[in-house]
Amino acid sequence: MTSTDPRSLDVDAVLAALTTEEKISLASGSDFWHTQGVERLGVPAVMVTDGPHGLRKQEGSTDHAGLHASVPATCFPPATGLASTWDRDLLRRVGEALGDECRAEDVAVLLGPGVNIKRSPLCGRNFEYFSEDPLLAGELATALVLGVQSRGVGTSLKHFAANNQETGRMTVSAEVDERTLREIYLPAFERVVTRAQPWTVMCAYNKVNGVYASQDPWLLTQVLRDEWGFEGLVVSDWGAVDVRWKGVAAGLDLEMPSSDGAGEASIRAALAAGDLTEAQLDVAVRRNLELVARALPGLGSGEALDVDAHHALARQAARQSAVLLTNDGVLPLDPRSGGRIAVVGELARSPRYQGAGSSQVVPTRLDDALTALQEGTDREVVFAAGYVTESVEADDALVVEAVEAARSAEVTVLFLGLPASFESEGYDREHLDLPAPQVALLEAVRAVTDRVVVVLSNGSAVATASWQHHAAALLEGWLLGQAGGSATADLLYGVVSPSGRLAETVPLRLEDTPAFGAFPGDSGVVRYGEGLLVGYRWYDTRRAPVGFPFGHGLSYTTFEHADLALAPAGEGPGTTVEVSLTVTNTGDRAGAEVVQVYAAPLDASVHRPAQELVGFARVELEPGASTPVTVTLTARDLGHWSAEHRRWVLEPGRYEVRVGASSRDVRASAVVRLDGEDLTAPLAAGDEAERWLAHPVAGPRLRELLGDAMAMLEDPQHGQMMRAIPLVRLARFPGFPVREADLPALVAEVGGRA
Amino acid sequence: MTSTDPRSLDVDAVLAALTTEEKISLASGSDFWHTQGVERLGVPAVMVTDGPHGLRKQEGSTDHAGLHASVPATCFPPATGLASTWDRDLLRRVGEALGDECRAEDVAVLLGPGVNIKRSPLCGRNFEYFSEDPLLAGELATALVLGVQSRGVGTSLKHFAANNQETGRMTVSAEVDERTLREIYLPAFERVVTRAQPWTVMCAYNKVNGVYASQDPWLLTQVLRDEWGFEGLVVSDWGAVDVRWKGVAAGLDLEMPSSDGAGEASIRAALAAGDLTEAQLDVAVRRNLELVARALPGLGSGEALDVDAHHALARQAARQSAVLLTNDGVLPLDPRSGGRIAVVGELARSPRYQGAGSSQVVPTRLDDALTALQEGTDREVVFAAGYVTESVEADDALVVEAVEAARSAEVTVLFLGLPASFESEGYDREHLDLPAPQVALLEAVRAVTDRVVVVLSNGSAVATASWQHHAAALLEGWLLGQAGGSATADLLYGVVSPSGRLAETVPLRLEDTPAFGAFPGDSGVVRYGEGLLVGYRWYDTRRAPVGFPFGHGLSYTTFEHADLALAPAGEGPGTTVEVSLTVTNTGDRAGAEVVQVYAAPLDASVHRPAQELVGFARVELEPGASTPVTVTLTARDLGHWSAEHRRWVLEPGRYEVRVGASSRDVRASAVVRLDGEDLTAPLAAGDEAERWLAHPVAGPRLRELLGDAMAMLEDPQHGQMMRAIPLVRLARFPGFPVREADLPALVAEVGGRA
Repeated sequence: MTSTDPRSLDVDAVLAALTTEEKISLASGSDFWHTQGVERLGVPAVMVTDGPHGLRKQEGSTDHAGLHASVPATCFPPATGLASTWDRDLLRRVGEALGDECRAEDVAVLLGPGVNIKRSPLCGRNFEYFSEDPLLAGELATALVLGVQSRGVGTSLKHFAANNQETGRMTVSAEVDERTLREIYLPAFERVVTRAQPWTVMCAYNKVNGVYASQDPWLLTQVLRDEWGFEGLVVSDWGAVDVRWKGVAAGLDLEMPSSDGAGEASIRAALAAGDLTEAQLDVAVRRNLELVARALPGLGSGEALDVDAHHALARQAARQSAVLLTNDGVLPLDPRSGGRIAVVGELARSPRYQGAGSSQVVPTRLDDALTALQEGTDREVVFAAGYVTESVEADDALVVEAVEAARSAEVTVLFLGLPASFESEGYDREHLDLPAPQVALLEAVRAVTDRVVVVLSNGSAVATASWQHHAAALLEGWLLGQAGGSATADLLYGVVSPSGRLAETVPLRLEDTPAFGAFPGDSGVVRYGEGLLVGYRWYDTRRAPVGFPFGHGLSYTTFEHADLALAPAGEGPGTTVEVSLTVTNTGDRAGAEVVQVYAAPLDASVHRPAQELVGFARVELEPGASTPVTVTLTARDLGHWSAEHRRWVLEPGRYEVRVGASSRDVRASAVVRLDGEDLTAPLAAGDEAERWLAHPVAGPRLRELLGDAMAMLEDPQHGQMMRAIPLVRLARFPGFPVREADLPALVAEVGGRA
Repeated sequence: MTSTDPRSLDVDAVLAALTTEEKISLASGSDFWHTQGVERLGVPAVMVTDGPHGLRKQEGSTDHAGLHASVPATCFPPATGLASTWDRDLLRRVGEALGDECRAEDVAVLLGPGVNIKRSPLCGRNFEYFSEDPLLAGELATALVLGVQSRGVGTSLKHFAANNQETGRMTVSAEVDERTLREIYLPAFERVVTRAQPWTVMCAYNKVNGVYASQDPWLLTQVLRDEWGFEGLVVSDWGAVDVRWKGVAAGLDLEMPSSDGAGEASIRAALAAGDLTEAQLDVAVRRNLELVARALPGLGSGEALDVDAHHALARQAARQSAVLLTNDGVLPLDPRSGGRIAVVGELARSPRYQGAGSSQVVPTRLDDALTALQEGTDREVVFAAGYVTESVEADDALVVEAVEAARSAEVTVLFLGLPASFESEGYDREHLDLPAPQVALLEAVRAVTDRVVVVLSNGSAVATASWQHHAAALLEGWLLGQAGGSATADLLYGVVSPSGRLAETVPLRLEDTPAFGAFPGDSGVVRYGEGLLVGYRWYDTRRAPVGFPFGHGLSYTTFEHADLALAPAGEGPGTTVEVSLTVTNTGDRAGAEVVQVYAAPLDASVHRPAQELVGFARVELEPGASTPVTVTLTARDLGHWSAEHRRWVLEPGRYEVRVGASSRDVRASAVVRLDGEDLTAPLAAGDEAERWLAHPVAGPRLRELLGDAMAMLEDPQHGQMMRAIPLVRLARFPGFPVREADLPALVAEVGGRA
């Protein structure tokens, strides 16, 4: 009955042999980080651990709240950094490395990545998420998942769904209309599920439109499995279960962590009461067994971790993650030109390289920028801390010291950023500002030198508008993982050219952000009132000013986009448009360009964002080199989710395709006219008279029937108002020649719908 | 059985005598403008007619669609103008005059006023509505209703509710959360109902949250009658009935117009099927009879209309309605100073003075500004049409003529505005711009003279930002009714000082408006995603730039606001704050100041607009004169509608009261701390650990029970995240010392709620 090979499991056989009590036990974890095993049938407990950007495997006992010390692991840049690379290949390689680290520690599933959309920059956990754009988030997470799983290790795509804030996250109801879910909050999940089949999906804590995500059959079964074809297991976020048996019925296969018997009791009682069938429980149990079966071959491999290689990869990832926002030419710094460099800011010495909460990794080593900058040059490097990172009070002595260092130097590199306590899982930020002492320090330093390079460390956007003019260059370092310090030095010294691009808009002010006034909600509810207009979709549709637009990022070289061509093919839902162009490195350094493709529907019959990212490609080019770039757009990329038809549709009409280096730096554009799908509904009695009159068959017939009464509908003063009335309502008006009773025959005569 | 006095009706007796078929007939009109009578019982049909700002009584037969010629009546400024007066007394007098006009024509009910909120300046019917602010709309409409009804004539408060656009108005569902309805879209109705008891309320065409307003028991009965105490009749907007019997059940007493038997058939069938009881029908019938009983004493009075007196009142109203937006000193024009005046613009000769659609009045006479300007001065006045009002193509010859006229004159008064076809019931505007030829004309004129006074005619805001710098003064004339032309001359010549104040924000751009991207919705739905942040609530909360702020309006004199004092009294829901100040006319002309009182809750626990209008007072002052102004605020004015408690509440905390001349021209402010109501809910197991620990009784008890486990909740790195977890969820975590089973006893011990 039990498998003889300890690295395989006969799921059918085990399922048949399980007692009901054993099945009930399998639907919950056995402790904080392990699934439940069944020893008599050779079903082992397997371990799952936190850490989208590195392994957080708890040391010692796993029967407590799970925030104890963890074993060292490579800390890659969190998603906020990785997303800025726009580099699928890199994400794949990071995923492979993460998979290898899991194998080395006998971890079955890595609990990530998180693809929630950055609805507001205030969300405390944004550092763990990729982007405000679902295509970018979905593409990069797909690559990461494929990488991890290529090593026989599972992932957990989280937090499904609409978990876009930390405030009240365990009880709040995210009120989102279905089109907004379908176009903004679900597509990243959909993309990863359909293209990478993550072994698990983790449900969110919150409710979606009033129903806990942990017990929502629409979300966990209808959408995830029936529509997207998900084949894996759904696990709860830790403590997300409200009523366990409802979760089983809805498609939540595994409750984590163990609940001291509460989950089991709930299932047991529901089975007894007939609220839940054993067949429903079997579905969840089977998925748990299948997960174990998938994990077994990768466990006990005894593989060793290649710490150096992974650190090098982390450095490569960090180099690509930083985004150069401004540069008046001060960068790159010449490490051989002589002259003193002042490095100012505690964050240069004590880096902030990951976010706070469940995802904190104990790194295998840690590069700080100060040391790396010292080691990367023969110039003299002086250091001054300038501030105490966690303090919101200025330290005058540190400021004086910093100003003196800056005054004595040719150039000052000033490290600023958000204290760790500002950004964490569990609570949200309250504003977009750097601590006041840091801004004051910048101003003090700027008073003695105009060559100030600012390097930022922060997990989500900070407002730079009030002080950025003090910086000769501004490098957005996000959170760069354990090799961020050396990578920063590489970028500042021009060892490599910056290539990161913003995966989230940097707003001018908090008040400008789409969800302002509605985030984080109150009274147990958060309304997504901005609808589809999240991130650049808001700013670009409203033509509102921003600090730095989505997709922005400078390089030490320059690129030209030329020869844009659009080639449509196929028809209806099978329509595609091949976008091709040539990109040339027109500068004198090697660098990477991220070609971004945006689409703007010009003839939409419904509200649509002014433009949306529909594709992107990252290319690395030597000076003077050119390369063709091709991106193929599908009907899905260009279409919208129709609330009327309750599916994705491609409307006929013109679509402008824009190619550029940010959402506001369009280098070339072209318009293609697509036939799309014929979405015209047949005429109905409830349609406005206007539509009836415009119909090629019904129009003339109606005019004939109305006779003189047409004058009312064609009256220059009132006609338009009258024509906006549904025919059935006009037909009830006294004196209208066509009566309601006449309409069924008329509708039938013109081929309309009853 | 029947009353012997033809001007009275014994409702009980008639009701008892009616057959079921007669009752059914009474629930619908008899034609387009009459209720149904019952001759055998002496129940007459009474007439209702359109026209919030003047009577639109159809001439001749009323059995057709009702847009035929109507009898002449005084055309007062539509609501867009009247609202800008902020003058309750004036509105009362206009109402009295309207009532007298109804009496003279034997009209029982005047179908107005409309108090829908101007959610977007694009709404085609905004000219018929008062404001973006519910307090202002409700106060002014209350005065108008009291005025009309003081003459024994009824009103119809419309369109109830959430009818804020024309696009798809007969079928669209306005999706609005309840708090937004309660705070923004319902309060103007509530105020008029509770303070003026309009004889009728007219239900809207649209659906509210999926239910037709014409058959929504929540709206028509629970809110309107049970909560607000409405005692009158609910009538359908013309053609708003979907399923008639459902309307009867929901509280729609009268269907208008007659529906060729469709309504009757619906009721008959529902009675037969038991879906509707005769008792339910009796409720509607009784209200119809009561309306007739109320109307009878005012009918057949044979009173004559005092055309001259009403024209004079219309002129007074128009004088007060115009808003002086800018003035570099060019105004007032001296009618005796000599020198030529050029009057340019077709609208000076052929005024646009009311909106289009059902509310169009045939005026008793019509003043045009050109004639009035000629008659008001001994200066030479030359005229040039400059453009064809309805044309969007420039007429070069007219421009040349206009430029020559301007070149030859000391000052040019340029009349610009929206063509009538741009604004109408039945469809919405598509942009905020004046016709391009008019702007080009302004630029051409401005090229030859810098003394250009622009006078605008438009029913809702137009964007002025791109051209207003060309105007030495800008007078927003809205739509001013039949005496608008002479009133405009009075203002330009300084016969009176302008005293209008904006009842709606003038935005800089369409893209800046709150509902942009969500108005007018699609697929049969319009989502009010901006929630509470309508009008200045949006701009002020987001600190967004505007063209001209809500409440703005210049005078030819100046005012000082001094000695602001706040006097709180009462407690809980009975709290009041008396706001007192002294206003002084510090200039050298008589004028009127509108003192606006805004409140800003400083300690709100929920999202609230940055500030809201809570009171206002209009005072007329001779030069140098002072007057005390007192405005008493109630708990309702300062509070909010709690989604949690489902009622209005006043939270404890600080409230800043701001007194000024616009939402952005605060002249004085003071802060008052109010105890408000104790809204603290007892502790529950589902509350976050943070709340438990902060509780004076429960906190120490929980700490004691948790012992060493408190370390986790106080961990500097993870504590805040852990404390944000509901206690009941922590109690299921492995190793947590307090278990879920312990919680009921603990809750009981600390006096919490189960």
